Amino acid sequence: MNDFYGIDESKIREYARLAVRAGVNVQPGQKVVVRCEAQHYAFARMIAEEAYTAGAGEVVMKYSDTVCTRLYYENVSDEVLTEVPDWMGESMNYYAREKAAFISVSGSNPEAYKGLDPKRLQTRSNLLQTAQKEFRDATMMSLVPWTIIAVPQEDWAKKVFPDLSEEDAMRRLWEYILKTVRIGDGDAVKAWEEHVAFLQKKCCLMNSYAFEKLHYKNSLGTDFTVGLAKGHIWEGGSEKAGTGVTFLANMPTEEIFTMPDCRVAEGTLVSALPLSLKGTLVKNFKLTFHEGCVTDCAAEEGEEALKALLETDEGSRRLGEVAFVPYGSPISAMKTLFYNTLFDENASCHFALGRCYPTTVAGGENMSEAELSAVGGNFSVNHVDFMVGTSDLAITGILADGSEVEVFRDGVWAI
Amino acid sequence: MNDFYGIDESKIREYARLAVRAGVNVQPGQKVVVRCEAQHYAFARMIAEEAYTAGAGEVVMKYSDTVCTRLYYENVSDEVLTEVPDWMGESMNYYAREKAAFISVSGSNPEAYKGLDPKRLQTRSNLLQTAQKEFRDATMMSLVPWTIIAVPQEDWAKKVFPDLSEEDAMRRLWEYILKTVRIGDGDAVKAWEEHVAFLQKKCCLMNSYAFEKLHYKNSLGTDFTVGLAKGHIWEGGSEKAGTGVTFLANMPTEEIFTMPDCRVAEGTLVSALPLSLKGTLVKNFKLTFHEGCVTDCAAEEGEEALKALLETDEGSRRLGEVAFVPYGSPISAMKTLFYNTLFDENASCHFALGRCYPTTVAGGENMSEAELSAVGGNFSVNHVDFMVGTSDLAITGILADGSEVEVFRDGVWAI
Repeated sequence: MNDFYGIDESKIREYARLAVRAGVNVQPGQKVVVRCEAQHYAFARMIAEEAYTAGAGEVVMKYSDTVCTRLYYENVSDEVLTEVPDWMGESMNYYAREKAAFISVSGSNPEAYKGLDPKRLQTRSNLLQTAQKEFRDATMMSLVPWTIIAVPQEDWAKKVFPDLSEEDAMRRLWEYILKTVRIGDGDAVKAWEEHVAFLQKKCCLMNSYAFEKLHYKNSLGTDFTVGLAKGHIWEGGSEKAGTGVTFLANMPTEEIFTMPDCRVAEGTLVSALPLSLKGTLVKNFKLTFHEGCVTDCAAEEGEEALKALLETDEGSRRLGEVAFVPYGSPISAMKTLFYNTLFDENASCHFALGRCYPTTVAGGENMSEAELSAVGGNFSVNHVDFMVGTSDLAITGILADGSEVEVFRDGVWAI
Repeated sequence: MNDFYGIDESKIREYARLAVRAGVNVQPGQKVVVRCEAQHYAFARMIAEEAYTAGAGEVVMKYSDTVCTRLYYENVSDEVLTEVPDWMGESMNYYAREKAAFISVSGSNPEAYKGLDPKRLQTRSNLLQTAQKEFRDATMMSLVPWTIIAVPQEDWAKKVFPDLSEEDAMRRLWEYILKTVRIGDGDAVKAWEEHVAFLQKKCCLMNSYAFEKLHYKNSLGTDFTVGLAKGHIWEGGSEKAGTGVTFLANMPTEEIFTMPDCRVAEGTLVSALPLSLKGTLVKNFKLTFHEGCVTDCAAEEGEEALKALLETDEGSRRLGEVAFVPYGSPISAMKTLFYNTLFDENASCHFALGRCYPTTVAGGENMSEAELSAVGGNFSVNHVDFMVGTSDLAITGILADGSEVEVFRDGVWAI
């Protein structure tokens, strides 16, 4: 049960170490919360071992199982669905107050919740998010270090590589994931340092322009202008947590991102990749914006789930993140749809509907909600990435004086 | 990862169904809490499915991993060890108040905690027991239905069958476990009905005698007299929960048991089987009692863990349960040491140190602690079974008038 489909176990362990060191940068005495599927218990043990080796004061394991969660949604009454006793929020908020490091091991079936009523999923998700607000805020505002990594599991691997046997698909997905996180023959930690330095150079460049707006256009039908928040900051690679350490919120990460002005968005965005929304795939969708707000949407598949998302709250209809990823990034070069935002967002330029990251505007971490709103910050219980980058995407930066700068051409950096 | 070592999956599913139906007897709308090791996720899913099929209102999964728990004990400071935030107690107490059914899936390595400081284990255990008092009381007083079952895992199977390969040991342990819970070609639920009827007949017989004391003697050196609580009731097989349903607290179960008078115990008890105490094996031990209390103890192995147990509180040095199991019971006939109380206690007559079961005395479920104490009831944060039954064990019942009745001869029923 503990094998990794023929992958050298030392590489898997290096991945666990990378999550602990480069990912959340565990400090002596710090608590570490690890969230993962029960079936990934063997990998989770490696994370626990590496975290204690790094000096963790306590490693708290929080297991779940998507299969049982699906059974829950299929069977419980509306009354049970809306029960969120206090301890359920506290069980995460407690560790946020303790300034723990949070490691999420994702890797569940992208279609785990296919066919379920999206409204029930959204209702429960909203209640949990509200109950766990301190935890949610601590991660969104980077008060604490956190990271999301992924490990393969059978149904996900078969979805990504439908032509391979389950075992071969699992091995292939492990190989791909290790490649995306730069684990190979060389020194992975060093490779990450160089990669983060490259991303930060691009951030500096974009910050020096301080564009007022960006215009997107491609042959899929995207023709869209978005405003950037006043004082926006492009971030990428590592972030600095309120606890003073640098951390990587996502591994892999190929993106640089910033805060849009959620009041300024006009035109149409067409999806470049399917979106896995709480286990439901939304395919070939289109969002039309006016004055920052989605006024129309359509999807070839999963439209109901997309609508449930948009109907959650006002902020779910507005943007909270703008992100650049060159079309030629290592992940997009794999020409593989992972059906998992962690990978797919790093294959493609994208946006997020919903809550903004306060750190992506100058002084944002100390601003009140009202102050953030005043510069264009968006608030919502949701934060959902969706991909728009194609091989012919053109992005033009528009300065305050109206002059234009070519930023992306044919899907890749033009500057 | 989901296979069961060649065992017919329908038998495994029947086991899950048995736990849900005969075990906790799930009622429509009732919440069900399932506690298990993360690595048993596949079996846990079957329990969840069967519970919803039986009409459960919600199935709550609580996973843990003994390997990570061991890392915790090895690494955390005394300060962290004694931290028990309120939500940790509430996360179980909440479901006790909701009158949930509790299913525990045991099956961790009997030596998982070998070599750890037993005092640290006991300290943590005591704090958790205290924090989860409502849950603890609800199960000990049978206010709610609960059951403990076991599934194999590699290190346990290798311990039980050291001469077999890991795979063969796992298959053998599955076969043995399924046999002990009467899953075979026939109707398992019917087999359980008959078995429970037999146990209840023996209870009636013992209750009609209403012995004042029992005397134990065998060639290992046991020579021991224990008083029975005034108004004691022999119970066995199924119990009736406060919620009105019958349930089986343990599967398998071969025992009938009652409440000793914790103030009356004289002489020496010699262990017949090793005791797995929080992951430490205690072997060949001897307990000497005077006026109900352990005054001396010795063990060839694991003495420190035994002493840590006895030092927990006053009640840990006194008896809380007396149980009969004929030496020829199906489990003892397997001539296999399971290193797991759930099985080994059903292979052998045994006692428990620590807390009594209030339901084993007339009216006990409605008595205050003071009232229970007055009839000889024992209180402790612990309740630990240890085995004394041998093939030559003689048990004599002593009536109030001093007359004697032979109850067990050569390890089996004499009446």
